Amino acid sequence: MSNRRTLPDPGQLANAIRTGDRVALGRAITFTESARPEHQALSRAVISELLSTPASRQTLRIAITGAPGAGKSTLIEAFGLYLIEQGHRVAVLAIDPSSQVSGGSILGDKTRMEQLSIHDSAFIRPSPSGDSLGGVARKTRESTLLVEAAGYDIVLVETVGVGQSETAAHSMTDLFLLLLLPGAGDELQGIKRGIVEMADLLFVNKADGERGALAQEARRHYANATHLLPSKPSGWAPRVLTGSAIEHQGISELWSGIQAFVQLTRSNGYFEQNRQQQAAYWLKEALQDGLYQLFYTHDAVRQSLNAVEKEVLAGRMSPFAAAEQVLEVFRGSSV
Amino acid sequence: MSNRRTLPDPGQLANAIRTGDRVALGRAITFTESARPEHQALSRAVISELLSTPASRQTLRIAITGAPGAGKSTLIEAFGLYLIEQGHRVAVLAIDPSSQVSGGSILGDKTRMEQLSIHDSAFIRPSPSGDSLGGVARKTRESTLLVEAAGYDIVLVETVGVGQSETAAHSMTDLFLLLLLPGAGDELQGIKRGIVEMADLLFVNKADGERGALAQEARRHYANATHLLPSKPSGWAPRVLTGSAIEHQGISELWSGIQAFVQLTRSNGYFEQNRQQQAAYWLKEALQDGLYQLFYTHDAVRQSLNAVEKEVLAGRMSPFAAAEQVLEVFRGSSV
Repeated sequence: MSNRRTLPDPGQLANAIRTGDRVALGRAITFTESARPEHQALSRAVISELLSTPASRQTLRIAITGAPGAGKSTLIEAFGLYLIEQGHRVAVLAIDPSSQVSGGSILGDKTRMEQLSIHDSAFIRPSPSGDSLGGVARKTRESTLLVEAAGYDIVLVETVGVGQSETAAHSMTDLFLLLLLPGAGDELQGIKRGIVEMADLLFVNKADGERGALAQEARRHYANATHLLPSKPSGWAPRVLTGSAIEHQGISELWSGIQAFVQLTRSNGYFEQNRQQQAAYWLKEALQDGLYQLFYTHDAVRQSLNAVEKEVLAGRMSPFAAAEQVLEVFRGSSV
Repeated sequence: MSNRRTLPDPGQLANAIRTGDRVALGRAITFTESARPEHQALSRAVISELLSTPASRQTLRIAITGAPGAGKSTLIEAFGLYLIEQGHRVAVLAIDPSSQVSGGSILGDKTRMEQLSIHDSAFIRPSPSGDSLGGVARKTRESTLLVEAAGYDIVLVETVGVGQSETAAHSMTDLFLLLLLPGAGDELQGIKRGIVEMADLLFVNKADGERGALAQEARRHYANATHLLPSKPSGWAPRVLTGSAIEHQGISELWSGIQAFVQLTRSNGYFEQNRQQQAAYWLKEALQDGLYQLFYTHDAVRQSLNAVEKEVLAGRMSPFAAAEQVLEVFRGSSV
């Protein structure tokens, strides 16, 4: 209990975040990322407080992925600065469950976003660490709500493009941007199956100097590939663009493409519908997490489960009968 | 309560199944497939009773899939009769969640297995119906335990090869057999991504008459394709065979291939380890199902969920705070 006294008041923290206090925002995200129940509760209270007043402006959540070397950091630097010039405030979050192991591969090195990282209108946060993709993704999702409440109207969610983080990023963003390198072929680019299918916009980066021809080749290849995919529920036909983040080329065209996507999906209702589906999905996930937590940390359940598990693994007991026996223990007890 | 009196005694039903009573076996499966709680409880009691005595012989569970037209029924007819000649007893089950809609596409028409279906040493059961793949798969998994207890030592689990039933079949069998047609290319064959990766044995069927050359082409194509796949945890390198089920060609070679797989995986420990993992998986699934059932049918939980859901969808409440609120209702109540 004594620990609780040192925690800030959720209402005060929420107010500080609303007024643009970056330290307060950073603290709130830290509570969100913490495993301690009292920090979790505080984080939920802050988010609830913030959501109780409607956001002052519409927000846009963009997933950005691409294989290592595709130039994600460089693009985020160039694109982020461009957006700020257009009057936006930009938050950069990440989902990279490997970051703990690899020492923070994504955004860990802010020097790769030299100008953006020190800009008043930008907020950059490295990937939360965690032992499961689900846990990491959940933290990023909660942080999205926090940075939006703090007035960052464009949230970029970066992933590494080589694993399953992309599906998680896809489930919490409005638009999916895939960065590509000049040249052709998913396999050569290290892009996993299914990622091209998720993309709304594909940006062939590094289309500069002598790589111009290769970039056009990649553009044609992916234009064909996306053309062959089944049409998306958004009604949007994916576009393939070329540019060079390091030379700030193609950035305004990228933004035009994003705006076209937003315009279409806002007018046909998909934008809002997708956000609702995502919220429903996250509610379901959170209920599931909480339910498992309740069940698997329940003493009598654990004892019962330990007892039946051996029998099931040895084939002496049906998994279904075993489950019923354990559930009976849970049912008969107070939770 | 009066209904219960008309239900058979689980011990008696189990005994009848053990002595090879096909009617008793059919009844037990019907209880397994029923949605009524008292039928479910009876089914669990029968399976528990049957598992309490160790099986008299080792069993083998084989998943068989292939696109429509690949000749699954013909192969099962030919292969099943061959196995019976070798002294085995063969049960044929199926997983086809679409069967309710399509009127029982799999095994519904036993005339396609004319000789096998009337054989004393064979037991054929159409796909259970159900509104979810999970439910259908669970029933098939429970039926597998029942038919094995009834002395059927080889269980063939058929799927249609066009959907996600294959993953379910893969999660309850020892070996995965994919039927192919002469000619090349997954897309042309209507085979979904990931199915070739699951296969331990690939059988190019209809390799008869003038299709011989095409069959060899398919064999080469798939031999290359499987060769490129990452090696399997079983340590087994997939084999591609050719044959003609309708002409009973290649059936003994198929059985040799299966025996080689069993020999390898029994000796390196994978066979048993895989069965244990599958049992653990089904235990986890059954616990999840039961837990959801408990939670989502709980009156106070439903009321609370209805109340918060609107707020979450409208973006006025965080999914995580909403989940916490609903879980608090569940926690505070008796389950």
